[in-house]
Order: sequence, then structure tokens, then C-alpha cells
Amino acid sequence: MSLHSEIHEQPQAFRRLLSAREEIQRITDEVQRRAPSYAFLAARGASDNAARYANYLWGAYNRLPVALATPSLFTYYNQPPSLKDALVVGISQSGQSPDIVAVLEEGRRQGCPTLAITNAPGSPLARCADFVLEILAGPEKAVAATKTYTAELLAMAMFSAALAQDGTRLAELEHVPAWSAQILELDGTIRDMAQRFRYMAHCVAIGRGFNYATAFEWSLKLKELSYIVAEPYSSADFQHGPIAIVERGFPVMAVAPGGQTFDSVLELLKQLRQAYKAELVVISDQPEALELAQSPIEMPSGIPEWLSPLLAIIPAQLFCYHLTQARGLDPEMPRSIQKITETR
Amino acid sequence: MSLHSEIHEQPQAFRRLLSAREEIQRITDEVQRRAPSYAFLAARGASDNAARYANYLWGAYNRLPVALATPSLFTYYNQPPSLKDALVVGISQSGQSPDIVAVLEEGRRQGCPTLAITNAPGSPLARCADFVLEILAGPEKAVAATKTYTAELLAMAMFSAALAQDGTRLAELEHVPAWSAQILELDGTIRDMAQRFRYMAHCVAIGRGFNYATAFEWSLKLKELSYIVAEPYSSADFQHGPIAIVERGFPVMAVAPGGQTFDSVLELLKQLRQAYKAELVVISDQPEALELAQSPIEMPSGIPEWLSPLLAIIPAQLFCYHLTQARGLDPEMPRSIQKITETR
Repeated sequence: MSLHSEIHEQPQAFRRLLSAREEIQRITDEVQRRAPSYAFLAARGASDNAARYANYLWGAYNRLPVALATPSLFTYYNQPPSLKDALVVGISQSGQSPDIVAVLEEGRRQGCPTLAITNAPGSPLARCADFVLEILAGPEKAVAATKTYTAELLAMAMFSAALAQDGTRLAELEHVPAWSAQILELDGTIRDMAQRFRYMAHCVAIGRGFNYATAFEWSLKLKELSYIVAEPYSSADFQHGPIAIVERGFPVMAVAPGGQTFDSVLELLKQLRQAYKAELVVISDQPEALELAQSPIEMPSGIPEWLSPLLAIIPAQLFCYHLTQARGLDPEMPRSIQKITETR
Repeated sequence: MSLHSEIHEQPQAFRRLLSAREEIQRITDEVQRRAPSYAFLAARGASDNAARYANYLWGAYNRLPVALATPSLFTYYNQPPSLKDALVVGISQSGQSPDIVAVLEEGRRQGCPTLAITNAPGSPLARCADFVLEILAGPEKAVAATKTYTAELLAMAMFSAALAQDGTRLAELEHVPAWSAQILELDGTIRDMAQRFRYMAHCVAIGRGFNYATAFEWSLKLKELSYIVAEPYSSADFQHGPIAIVERGFPVMAVAPGGQTFDSVLELLKQLRQAYKAELVVISDQPEALELAQSPIEMPSGIPEWLSPLLAIIPAQLFCYHLTQARGLDPEMPRSIQKITETR
């Protein structure tokens, strides 16, 4: 029962990482001194989804553009780009995948500041970085990442607030453990709700802005655990073509917390439910969005938008866990995949 | 019959754009003078898939890192990142989508060099750019982009070779129209092949490196035209979790031309066919990859890897066109979508 208990360990894991705030401030002070023009991030799998959060968060709050790395340029093509003026960041729970390590090594060779965000401070990734932001999630035994994913998000959120020396946001971070504990109380409700999707063959997951990451991670968990073909989209990209796949009853998983992008996601959800008669699972703190869903999942109110990805993924994790059990599959032993995937 | 004829117009469209080589050299000379540290690219839909090609190509051959923009930072969040040292590029067939225009306007406001790659030189996007690379594809009437997608790729390939003043690659570009004409002769073969997939409900599309873009575009066409849930992956990302969805008979569309990443894609295809008993459609010029496929699509030999995305997508376009007809759907009138999508 590692997976279910690791989902429930998230409040503790958050608390542990929040206690490292001074160490993170020390790292951001050093990074500030190097004044990078942009961040160059390398990651795979769930960590790559976490990187999408940084893409928005660091852009919006730190004015730092983020380029997501294409690791094959560093491995197969052996023609790495010039990383002048970049902060080079590798994100990996295990710190083992050779392609991610190769990106950091190249950054180091080119004289860039390098940062590893990892749960494994003794890993090859950590060993080649100037700065190591240890996410302190504790051992994760389940193949599917849950608490290491949200700890990576929290690490990036703490990094952002510390870099900006933003007192308001630094204070808001302290509420994350309590909010997450409150969300975990939905466990039984979500178990009942998941039954309806026992025979779902495919779906899409929709989110926008900060929660684009949540759409990616929800769909990754659906694939890894429940073997459902689930494709993530921003609500904007979905309208540039893919929306054609939606027919009556087509299942859409949506992450729609209040905030700057809420109106755009809400508009799409209205269209999907009212015009296309889609089937909606909606995670939100907004009644207007929840009312549109056949399966509404209500988040606590008062969570600021920039922290919503750390919390909105938790009901999605529970949903995937219970759906996997409803389908008669073993959430602890997903077929075909291992805990550590080493790609070049 | 716009779609089918537009697919067949690609050799002409390539020839037209190749004749603009001097204008493109003039643009790259100006860009060179501004010496950007990286490129910041904004695009949606098929143009966003084209942007993925630049991500690899400009990184590998011009040492220029590419950041794919997150337009909502510029529209909903209204907190655009600092674009210091960036070349800001907007890619859009129509040049109309307000979010893409907003990114270029912000680049201009911040004093960055700005480049529009578009089929519409009088569009809002072109009007706010320092440099306009007109793709000269001619009017595209079908809702699904085909010749404007490949013309965008060719524009980026010409930009790359001109920027590097690479005589070998400039010469290789001249063969693209002839290769594309040769591939179009596969039309009848692919029509027959597509029948087998009449009842396919979902699939994945796999490519890596330069052809990561091709996997995205193939899957977008499957969704837009045939309403099939088709998710694109790099062969590396696919192994970090999603491979769990593959069961006996699961359909995989693969783009596997010879080149630096071929061995890694081949290894995955072997595993998919031999261990997982997947159903493979493979576009390749390599016998080892073609032999693994129940449905092999053979490309002409001698195409250099960096140009393969311009050509490997053509049989995929034909495949989607014929599959759409086989499913009794109208490829000229896909449901729910329009030619110009305006998102914020």
C-alpha cells in the first residue's frame, strides 16, 4: 500500500521541505548574484510536468523566461546549444537519468550556474550541480510519483518566493500543509466518484497557466496506473484543432481553480458541457465551474492561484488511485514501467 | 477537394519559398548583427508543432537555445517575462491569433528583435514584427493545415542554413521539392493501407529529435480530421510512464528516419512489436524499422536527417486524409473547428 500512503504523506512532506526555507534563500541569493537572463530546465516524466509549473511561475513572478531542454541535443546529436546567460536546472526525483545529467554537465562545462532539484542528494545529478535543492520528500516506493511531484512543485514555489523576496508569498506557503490535509479528507468521496469511469478508454485533461502542469500530471497518472489514453491540453491549444475529437459523452478531466485564467477555462467548459454534451470531472473552488460537472471535486476556498497546482493535483492522484482499483488493476505494480527510467 | 489538392501542392510551395533565399539571407544577416542569446517562440496548433522543429534544429545547427512561449503570461497574467537578449519569434499561418500577436508586441516593447513567420504578410502579426519571413504557401482553404505547416518548416530550415552560412545545407535544401514529389506517389498505397484503421479509437505517435515535431503534427491531423484520440511522444518520454498503456494490438504511429536518434527509436519499436505485440505504422527509409511494421511506409533514401521532418509528415498527411474518408467523415469539413482560431 505504498501509493495510497504516499499520497497521504504529502502534508508531512510539505512541512519538512518548508523547514528548509533558509537553505533555499541561500541558493536564490547565489543565483541572484549570477543574474541569469533565462532558465534552461531539463526533466522527464512527472518532473517534466513539474518543470511546466516553473515555466509559468518563474515567468510571472520572477520575470525569468524558461526554456524546456531537449535532452537529445546533448546526447544523440551531441550538438548542445550555447547556454550563455542561462541558469541550467535539472529536475529528477532519483537524479539518475543520464540525459538529464548530461544537460547539467554541459551547463557546467560552459560556465553556467547549475541547479539540481532532487530527492537524492547523493545522485549523479546532484553531484554535478553547483546548487542542490533537496526536496526532502522521504523515500518514495511506489512506481508512480506523487509526493515527490508535489515536493518538486513546492521547491519551485519556495525558490520563486525567495528569489523575489516576496513576504506575502513566503507567508502563503506556510498554509500549504493544512490545505493539503483538508483535501485528503475527500478520499472517500473520490473513491465513490471514480466508479463511474471503470470502463473509460480515453479522455483529455485540461488546465491552463499554472495548472497546465496539473493537466499533464493528471493525464500521466491515468496512463501509468489505469492504462487510459489521456492527453493533456491547455484550454487554448485544445481549441486549435483537437476539440474536434469531442463527441457526446466524451470524458474531460478539468482543473479550473479561481484566478487569472479561470474565465477562459470556464468558457471552454460551458461549451463542452452545453454544446458538445461532454462528460466533465472538474477540480475547482468555483461554484460556476463545479455546477457544470457531472463529477465535481470541490477544493477549499482561499488558495491563491500560484499555489493551486500543489493542491489541485491531490484529488487527481486519489481519483487515479481509486479508478485503478475499480478497474481491477494493481496501483502498486503498473505494468511495463520501473521506478527509475534511464534514457539517453 | 481542397485538402487533397493542397497536400499535392507541396512541391510547388517548396519551390516558391526556396526562391526567396536572398530575402531570408538578408533577415538572418540582421538577426546575426543583433546576436541574440536565445530564441523565444510563440505559436499555436500546427505552427506550435513547427516550432518544435526549430527547437531542435536551431539548437543543433545554430547553437541557439529555443524557449517555447507560454502566451497566457502575456495575456491573462499580464506579467510577461523579461526578454532581454532574446530573438522573439511568432509563427502563425494566418497571423491572427491575439495571444501570439501579444508576445511579439511585448518583445518589441522590450526592444528585442522580432520575427514573424507567416503566410499572411498583411496580418496583425506581420505588422508588429521587425522582420517578416513570408512562407509563400499560397491560399490554404482546407481547415487542416498541410502545405502551410511544411512551408513553415522549410522557412525555419532555410533560416537555419542561412544563419550558419552553411553551403552544404543550403545545397541540400534544393532537393526538397523533388523528394516531396516522389513521396506523393505513395498516395494510392497509403489509401489502401489506411483501411485497416477504420475502427481505431485511439493511438500514440512517436518521434524523436527533429521528428518530435512530426509526431505532434501527425497526431494533430488524426484528431482534427479523423477524431481519433492520438497522443504524441518522444521515444524517451514515452518510456517514462506512458508506455504502460500499451497492450496487445495497441496502435503506434512511428516516425523513424535514419539519423542520430534512429537507434533509440528502433530499440523502442522492437520492444513494442516483439514484447508488447503492438500494431505499428512506421514511416522510415531504414529496412530494420520498416520490417517491424505491419504497415510500413517507405521514404526515399538519401534525405538528410535535418530535412526529414519536411518530408516524413507528407505520408502521414495522406494517411490521415484517407483514413478520414474510410471512416465516412468529410476531411474538408471537420466538426467543431474553424480555419482561424483566435485565442487569448
